Amino acid sequence: MIKRIGNRTLEFTNQPTVRAYASVAGKKESEGPLGGLFDKIITDSYDGLDTYEDAESQLQTEAMALALKKGKLKKSDIDFVFAGDLLNQCVGSSFGLKDYNIPYLGQYGACSTMAQNIIAASVFVESGAAENAGCSTSSHFCSAERQYRYPLEYGAIRTPTAQWTVTGAGCCIIGNGECKVKISRATVGKIIDLGITDANNMGAAMAPAAAETIAAFFKDTDSSPSDFDCIFTGDLGEVGSNSLYELLQREGIDIKNNHRDCGLMIFERRFQDVHAGGSGCGCCASVLCSKILNDLEHGKLKNILFIATGALLSATTAGQSKTIPSIAHLVNLQS
Amino acid sequence: MIKRIGNRTLEFTNQPTVRAYASVAGKKESEGPLGGLFDKIITDSYDGLDTYEDAESQLQTEAMALALKKGKLKKSDIDFVFAGDLLNQCVGSSFGLKDYNIPYLGQYGACSTMAQNIIAASVFVESGAAENAGCSTSSHFCSAERQYRYPLEYGAIRTPTAQWTVTGAGCCIIGNGECKVKISRATVGKIIDLGITDANNMGAAMAPAAAETIAAFFKDTDSSPSDFDCIFTGDLGEVGSNSLYELLQREGIDIKNNHRDCGLMIFERRFQDVHAGGSGCGCCASVLCSKILNDLEHGKLKNILFIATGALLSATTAGQSKTIPSIAHLVNLQS
Repeated sequence: MIKRIGNRTLEFTNQPTVRAYASVAGKKESEGPLGGLFDKIITDSYDGLDTYEDAESQLQTEAMALALKKGKLKKSDIDFVFAGDLLNQCVGSSFGLKDYNIPYLGQYGACSTMAQNIIAASVFVESGAAENAGCSTSSHFCSAERQYRYPLEYGAIRTPTAQWTVTGAGCCIIGNGECKVKISRATVGKIIDLGITDANNMGAAMAPAAAETIAAFFKDTDSSPSDFDCIFTGDLGEVGSNSLYELLQREGIDIKNNHRDCGLMIFERRFQDVHAGGSGCGCCASVLCSKILNDLEHGKLKNILFIATGALLSATTAGQSKTIPSIAHLVNLQS
Repeated sequence: MIKRIGNRTLEFTNQPTVRAYASVAGKKESEGPLGGLFDKIITDSYDGLDTYEDAESQLQTEAMALALKKGKLKKSDIDFVFAGDLLNQCVGSSFGLKDYNIPYLGQYGACSTMAQNIIAASVFVESGAAENAGCSTSSHFCSAERQYRYPLEYGAIRTPTAQWTVTGAGCCIIGNGECKVKISRATVGKIIDLGITDANNMGAAMAPAAAETIAAFFKDTDSSPSDFDCIFTGDLGEVGSNSLYELLQREGIDIKNNHRDCGLMIFERRFQDVHAGGSGCGCCASVLCSKILNDLEHGKLKNILFIATGALLSATTAGQSKTIPSIAHLVNLQS
């Protein structure tokens, strides 16, 4: 059963476990600091297929195949898959996972999708609805640029606050087997909208959502940043991370000393031209399903927070000069 | 706790209840057979706002407000809201619900979203994660036409198999209070893709998914169509309903005598020019949150199946001549 603690944090009394995980990433990501940790690298943006969208779908197909293999699981062992992505109507997920024949629950949380998947999967496992549930998401630089900004052929100039969409996917399997990494608590985000309208500065739009969720978790659980080895955010990048510090400081919370942002971990910005850092559903998903879960599995990390943030806009709302509502979901992982 | 019965059907042992529900619909829908049952009608496609997208968001804002009011609930009574829609990046839901300040889990199931919401909400309630959870979705004829087909100003001709996107929203609150209508069982759909590529014939694309889920439910629960007062499908329309009968007949299942499709219920096709019937997330959501839940609440129906179907394509995949993967989720409601 699940206990509600404080105002809205969930505590998993049986603690679902991460039975397996895998990541797939693109060439640029392979050249970053985590390059050696991804399970598979695709060097061709098309991944041998006809379109960038096909390539993105295949990232999810492959991440799921690798996770199943690494976990010695069959696809029939997985009761549900929770998945979503940034492509319109989440076609990266539906096309990428359709041949697995697993009951499918499409999620939409923009770049917060991986944390949302894990929360939903953990609730399903804890409730008895699932024995094992898959969590999958992806992003692809080329399909995202085409859909959200400009076709690459235009050679459009990017602003300094812009982030670079990660080509990558992550998949993890949540279950109740005996495994080292456990999901102990989670806080579901609220939609936060402070009126930011600059679609080239997602970090600033998403930071208030991250701050709200993190503050809620600390309050609900009566804990503080020093209780955790590390607080990982999804893809705030440099601008968003700085906003986050400032917003949390106003609440008397200082996370600077043990915070890392997946968008800043995946690229080496001194050498890689990614402006404010990496972004996209695949950013924190591929970092979680490589570096973070590796370190938890091997005891380098014992107790962490994983907060994935998402900007809930569309190209239509951006064109209509709407604000950017954002959200952040938090998962507490322990080993 | 939740029991898994048969291969993949979920049985809710505590049976979450429908604590409240409300529907909002457009002018054309108000002129159909269910017109008198909707809680609110909007007669202006813009609903007094600047864009069709704003109007669609407001449908969800209003449906949620009405459901809370009818259920004598405050927004702070709702622990989570599950919502999604057909607009790119589900902005109908995120903009429509952002001011409620309720932890938000965005769902994407295309027109199957309402059933998916109810399943997720029921699992959250049954597990103890939520006391009350909201389920919300919408569609709007004008925003859907612009995004998926042509701007209305073009006056494009529609094919006879095309369906008419319903302008409407439905919201229901799932909880564990003492209420008449209970959620007893549910079957989550798999992604089914039989290779149909005609984006103007969604009924045909979605029927195989409905058939697969319905057959799985009957097998898992050892039940048959005659055990239920009515089997409601989401928005298969005329073409899809006929395909469904044929596909199920091959499995020895005959649902013809007690089947109704929300896409055929919401419009009177003899007088209303909607071709093969209504469609959109708001179609079955508004029919469920008016006629169906009314009839369950007042004892006219005792035991029904609600199967919402979704086509998991995008305008991009349609333009790339891809097939249309589809899905159908089933909920068994009893009173």
